[in-house]
Amino acid sequence: LKRLPPPGRIAYVDGLYVRHGEAGVHVEDRGLQFGDSVYEVCRVEGGCLCDLDEHLGRLERSLGEVAIPMPMSRSVLTVVMNEVVRRNRVCNGLIYLQVTRGAMRRDFQIPGRPRRPTLILTAHELDQAAIARRHAEGVKVVTLSDERWARCDIKTTQLLAGSIAKTKVREQGAFEAWLVDRDGFVTEGASSNAWIVDASGRIVTRHLNHAILPGVTRRVVLEAAAALNMATVERKFTPGEAVAASEAFMTSSTGPVIPVVDIDGKSVGNGRPGRITGLIAEKYSELSRNRLK
Amino acid sequence: LKRLPPPGRIAYVDGLYVRHGEAGVHVEDRGLQFGDSVYEVCRVEGGCLCDLDEHLGRLERSLGEVAIPMPMSRSVLTVVMNEVVRRNRVCNGLIYLQVTRGAMRRDFQIPGRPRRPTLILTAHELDQAAIARRHAEGVKVVTLSDERWARCDIKTTQLLAGSIAKTKVREQGAFEAWLVDRDGFVTEGASSNAWIVDASGRIVTRHLNHAILPGVTRRVVLEAAAALNMATVERKFTPGEAVAASEAFMTSSTGPVIPVVDIDGKSVGNGRPGRITGLIAEKYSELSRNRLK
Repeated sequence: LKRLPPPGRIAYVDGLYVRHGEAGVHVEDRGLQFGDSVYEVCRVEGGCLCDLDEHLGRLERSLGEVAIPMPMSRSVLTVVMNEVVRRNRVCNGLIYLQVTRGAMRRDFQIPGRPRRPTLILTAHELDQAAIARRHAEGVKVVTLSDERWARCDIKTTQLLAGSIAKTKVREQGAFEAWLVDRDGFVTEGASSNAWIVDASGRIVTRHLNHAILPGVTRRVVLEAAAALNMATVERKFTPGEAVAASEAFMTSSTGPVIPVVDIDGKSVGNGRPGRITGLIAEKYSELSRNRLK
Repeated sequence: LKRLPPPGRIAYVDGLYVRHGEAGVHVEDRGLQFGDSVYEVCRVEGGCLCDLDEHLGRLERSLGEVAIPMPMSRSVLTVVMNEVVRRNRVCNGLIYLQVTRGAMRRDFQIPGRPRRPTLILTAHELDQAAIARRHAEGVKVVTLSDERWARCDIKTTQLLAGSIAKTKVREQGAFEAWLVDRDGFVTEGASSNAWIVDASGRIVTRHLNHAILPGVTRRVVLEAAAALNMATVERKFTPGEAVAASEAFMTSSTGPVIPVVDIDGKSVGNGRPGRITGLIAEKYSELSRNRLK
């Protein structure tokens, strides 16, 4: 009798579906030795991949920026991703995808001729009750100085600054860290994009450049706002402006739209999730549902 | 009959000596997923570890800064390092040591209670002819903007910016990239510290703060200069000042002291390795030899 593996415990590494506990990469993988790798996290809803085209487009862009080849075509990758979701029986959760430059003898200099990149996929369920609670109650954020490198537009695994920032603010009872650049403006969250609603009801988020990640959810939220005839402005804002805003929220693939009700210990608006945030979240879900893969 | 493994092909991972080709870490190791790891590279001379106390001291500092526990005591680690050198029959080469926070379910938030860190050791010979050639002829460097994160004093494996920089300048025939901060001053090389000799014969290298790595060889070179009664100044300098300097050199554990004879296509001094650089290199070797372990 064949026994099916228990859910959540199959990984895909370099062409093979393997038991999660045995899934490994070589110690000279450049992802491990140099942070030379990029990743994507894709939400799974009802067993389907959300905003997949956007994630694969961004993956291709990240890989292109650091000259790592795509490990396989988009269509084959889609098949493999769906298979990882299926084998792990994920209904509402996420799939994690990482591509490294591969294993090779350690050298700062990247070999001129590309080697076979390493592709890693894992998937698991997410706690839906915790997500619902965040949507209903909103979350607190704390601002911290942005210590990351100059190319945060590339989704590399060099995440220690963000990880340390998030750990610090969690110890203070906050859910997310909003990072502040040397000029005093919010860049983005440690693993999310940052948004406010200004006094005239316009939805504000930082413009895209090397300082922030071009969020997939960010992009769909801008579409959602347009569909709702709400004005949007892509510009930077300060923590002070955010505290004084009528509403604030954060977006990420797993969030996806989370109301922010407290910044640095000060209530935003009336301290409860905002009305516009709610409308955006609803519209986002609708747009996202229409293109499940 | 027991067969000895071929040289250079044994790694130590997490308590075990394993064949290099089979040495791996889990795909959810935080070194791989977050760049959440630190490392050291130690030169091996005549089968002995160079500047070991300095390397272990810096390792402890790096780990402390990111709150990863030491994987074992200094004395046990020394035993294991020597054993890795011995098993790989390394005479003149290097040992690479990496400590990650360990494997755990992926989360930006670092768990409050420390887990068992992952310790990885590999070792191999270095091409002594290439090293001698660099010492005899000197090398070229090219300056590039420093895109790394704000805590380069911690020796983490978030090395992609340095790796890309070094790759770029190698394509231009240079050996090392000297990185330039937003204010126009040299921080350090992609994997080395940067030095010049000014018009009055003083040896200049950037002061220690969050912008540069506290180089082990840097520290011993400062001692060497003191032993030679040469004046040293720890301050920043510009690429222009470096080009106009009478001598320039770079230091790293594997270098260890390499004359720089060309910066951005312009000759430094007479375009040949400098006299003071040579004296420093000699004194460094003497000091370093006296504390082989």
